[in-house]
Amino acid sequence: MPSIATRLIPVWLRQYQLSALPTDIIAGIVVGVLVIPQSLGYAVLAGLPPVYGLYAAIVPVAVYAWLGSSNVQAVGPAAVTAIMTASALHPYADKGAEQYVLMAALLALMMGAILWLAGQLKLGWIMQFISRGVSAGFISGAAVLIFISQLKYLTGIPISGDGLIGYLSSMQMYANQLHPLTLVIGISAFALMLLNRYGKKWVWQSWLSASYAKWAERLFPLILLTAAIALSIVLHWTTSGVATIGNVPKGLPSFTAPYLPDFHEALNLLPTAGLMALIAFVSSSSVASTYARLRGELFDANRELTGLGLANVAGSFFQSFPIAGGFSRTAINVDSGAKTPLASLVTVLVMIAALIAFGYLLAPLPYAILGATIMAAIIGLIDIATLKSAWHRDRLDAASFIAAFVGVLIFGLNTGLVIGLMVSFASLIWQSSKPHVAIVGQLAGTGHFRNINRHDVVTFHNLLMLRIDESLFFGNSESVHRHVVQATRQYPEASEIILIMSAVNHIDLTGQEMLISLNQELLNQNKHLSFSFIKGPVMDIIEHTPVITDLSGHVYLSTMDAVNGLKDTH
Amino acid sequence: MPSIATRLIPVWLRQYQLSALPTDIIAGIVVGVLVIPQSLGYAVLAGLPPVYGLYAAIVPVAVYAWLGSSNVQAVGPAAVTAIMTASALHPYADKGAEQYVLMAALLALMMGAILWLAGQLKLGWIMQFISRGVSAGFISGAAVLIFISQLKYLTGIPISGDGLIGYLSSMQMYANQLHPLTLVIGISAFALMLLNRYGKKWVWQSWLSASYAKWAERLFPLILLTAAIALSIVLHWTTSGVATIGNVPKGLPSFTAPYLPDFHEALNLLPTAGLMALIAFVSSSSVASTYARLRGELFDANRELTGLGLANVAGSFFQSFPIAGGFSRTAINVDSGAKTPLASLVTVLVMIAALIAFGYLLAPLPYAILGATIMAAIIGLIDIATLKSAWHRDRLDAASFIAAFVGVLIFGLNTGLVIGLMVSFASLIWQSSKPHVAIVGQLAGTGHFRNINRHDVVTFHNLLMLRIDESLFFGNSESVHRHVVQATRQYPEASEIILIMSAVNHIDLTGQEMLISLNQELLNQNKHLSFSFIKGPVMDIIEHTPVITDLSGHVYLSTMDAVNGLKDTH
Repeated sequence: MPSIATRLIPVWLRQYQLSALPTDIIAGIVVGVLVIPQSLGYAVLAGLPPVYGLYAAIVPVAVYAWLGSSNVQAVGPAAVTAIMTASALHPYADKGAEQYVLMAALLALMMGAILWLAGQLKLGWIMQFISRGVSAGFISGAAVLIFISQLKYLTGIPISGDGLIGYLSSMQMYANQLHPLTLVIGISAFALMLLNRYGKKWVWQSWLSASYAKWAERLFPLILLTAAIALSIVLHWTTSGVATIGNVPKGLPSFTAPYLPDFHEALNLLPTAGLMALIAFVSSSSVASTYARLRGELFDANRELTGLGLANVAGSFFQSFPIAGGFSRTAINVDSGAKTPLASLVTVLVMIAALIAFGYLLAPLPYAILGATIMAAIIGLIDIATLKSAWHRDRLDAASFIAAFVGVLIFGLNTGLVIGLMVSFASLIWQSSKPHVAIVGQLAGTGHFRNINRHDVVTFHNLLMLRIDESLFFGNSESVHRHVVQATRQYPEASEIILIMSAVNHIDLTGQEMLISLNQELLNQNKHLSFSFIKGPVMDIIEHTPVITDLSGHVYLSTMDAVNGLKDTH
Repeated sequence: MPSIATRLIPVWLRQYQLSALPTDIIAGIVVGVLVIPQSLGYAVLAGLPPVYGLYAAIVPVAVYAWLGSSNVQAVGPAAVTAIMTASALHPYADKGAEQYVLMAALLALMMGAILWLAGQLKLGWIMQFISRGVSAGFISGAAVLIFISQLKYLTGIPISGDGLIGYLSSMQMYANQLHPLTLVIGISAFALMLLNRYGKKWVWQSWLSASYAKWAERLFPLILLTAAIALSIVLHWTTSGVATIGNVPKGLPSFTAPYLPDFHEALNLLPTAGLMALIAFVSSSSVASTYARLRGELFDANRELTGLGLANVAGSFFQSFPIAGGFSRTAINVDSGAKTPLASLVTVLVMIAALIAFGYLLAPLPYAILGATIMAAIIGLIDIATLKSAWHRDRLDAASFIAAFVGVLIFGLNTGLVIGLMVSFASLIWQSSKPHVAIVGQLAGTGHFRNINRHDVVTFHNLLMLRIDESLFFGNSESVHRHVVQATRQYPEASEIILIMSAVNHIDLTGQEMLISLNQELLNQNKHLSFSFIKGPVMDIIEHTPVITDLSGHVYLSTMDAVNGLKDTH
């Protein structure tokens, strides 16, 4: 049965070249080891026990390796999807840890199902829905929220809430619970991480070669984590009141159906799951397509939707929370020499080994270390560079950035994203809401018609000819209507109005309603409306509607025909 | 000081012709009397005591008469803004009636301030933001919600919640509280209203002339209300457990500053206030512009924003909740002969008279009658006709209708509106996400370049010339990139890629990033990117950006120049 086998075995595996095996294995191990601190931290960020960060790096990663669009993208727990999970499940936080875990899996199931469905409907083009400004502004705002949310692990203050103001007010409220030792540990770790990242020139590059320095920088969080565990044991941090991870269950994630709450609660999660799907898809596609370009491969957005969707769906049955593609883990993967998704399968094996053999070692690790890891990693996501270049190169996109950024900080993630999208669509509509409508006349002796303000043309006292230079849609129908009415007032003696439709590629319902109403208003003033040069696809749409059936004038193939038919020879 | 006087006195008053006085007065009285039942009902719909419906028809109406854009639009409590108020304040409902009233005024203040600000920023074009499908779908969904929400007054069952499922589940929960007499009163009133509205042919037109029949139909709700009051007194409905309006405070609304809750609560209301402002503006503009067209007047969207905004702001200090323009009350105003906003000032006097002299008469009126009034009025807002015509004439707009309609029913008003808007923007982006990119060649012996698939043109083995037939923005940058990359694979021997930019009217940040990345990818393959025919405004934007400064090829004024400069003569 070769056909089933070929269906089940992905192309990259069937065509696998053994020469890629050594680097794939090395890359898989490197990624597996290096992303452990991040994965633990993102689980905590999502509101889950740290071990769920390792769970989420098993089943979904394997499924993505099998079905995903990218050969080198490393998927797993990601910062933005983690904080969106926390924000979505915040109202359910008091229902107990067990319920919360099941709700997180439910969110992964819903988000995965939406992604998969979008892939089946070939909605890959929707990645173009989010402008550069909106996505950078949203991620920057989320990064600030993440940064502040981690302060609770660095201070011991139980910060909770949704959005900046919620965090700040709850931080103020419980400020007396500040735990000094935790703060010292957290701040030290954070300072070391910053030094490692932003001071690498002095710390590493002064005595190591460039490539060793890069690896030293990457390995550092893991070293710090190990050192912290050792210090925690030696100095008895747990008994000094430092919050540590504690008992880590040994073993692999087990098959567990996601929690189905009552129908009403599931519905309430649906819009959030939709926004998370959009963000996960856009950020994963951005990683995958960047690397596809670099490797000269074509990027298939619909396959990315399907792969990411089924990875989340499958994960949701194995205690995973929502996952997406990540820039930093993909960069490590590629830099370590990954050539195929086999590297990701090796990463999965590393995670399994960690869970079975080393998980218990994590117990003495302070949460403050995970918080510091996330805070140091997240600073790079605050994308001031994009805001700057948008400010210089496209003010409207800068406005979208600011709207999404400020919106996220003030109103929370979902509302902020929607506000950013609205502003970017508003700028789009604003640009096309002022279509060019030219009054034209005939170039003497020819069949050509040109703008009367630019050319020496012949006009006819009873004719008013207007060329509409844009498709008619809800964003400009009102403006086109106003242009036409103003022109009829400017030329009150013209009783025949001809709209030249040569540049109208599409006409939506609002545009049609406008033409119907315009026709009626002109008729009330004893003027007739005619059309010339309607394109085929547009005519197909309006042919049997009142736009044509109730038209007071005629439809002409060319403007010349219209002039010959309508001009007053008196 | 004539300049201050002329500023303070509106144009219509300075130019007032006494001949309009009689009909203005009659129209004002008719509107004032006829809209009383509706106004009471909309206040109840908004979650307020009925008398606030009359309050909201005083100060805001007077301010709109002074500053509004329309000569004949009658503003006041409206169905959709009322249910949006109820939905926004639902979380605060248990804070006591007095607080709720102050929060409703706060919402009017916020919405009014947003409208006013939008007017100052000349954002009138934003009325084009909402497509016909979205607005019809949203209003239809809201109408269904309103209809169901009124069932609580017809049954006595204390329905509450946000969205269809909330209503239905709470209805089921309290079904045992059904009050049979209330149901009989409510259903009878509703049946009579339906008969009056949809059976007018038999009820009125069989024995009255057309114009009398119209007035009889309009007067009927008032007659029913009077009859219900009389019956309620005679049959002692209040003591039989029928919920009646009870004591109506005598006197005018007093100056009361809107309630300022803590900053966080006010912020939470802001997004809702923004959506309400959008809906109030779009529906009022639709009424005002329709009547402006019919009367041959120009409609000024920015003045409508300012007028509607200040009407709400002023009202918020006099115990008013959010108001908007209404189609039915404007129709009555115009039909009764209103020529100027003086009619609305007369309406205000009627409301004042009602509050001072007749308010106490309303005490025995059952809420069931108000509910039946609203339910009968609201059925006409369920706009199946628009869905049908959208289905036949513009499937994408039909999809927006359905998304907004279903979204409102399942997820509530705000989320439903946002979902509808997203779908309409997605269709917009989908349409322009597939721009036409043509590979062109030279028409032999000329400076003209045409599509190689349509014309017999000369090509050059080392040149690939592509014409982009659309502005470059976030919605199509990825597609354009794919087109170009595919063309370079199709013509692998071409090392000079020329993009002809003659049809690119605008380029946003995402488009610029795409060109920068495209340039780099081509350079990695030893190919050079050049541009020809960049329009002035586009060049102004990209001149000092990496699009131009890092370009591997050159910028040519014309495609002819590019060919002469780059063609391989070997």
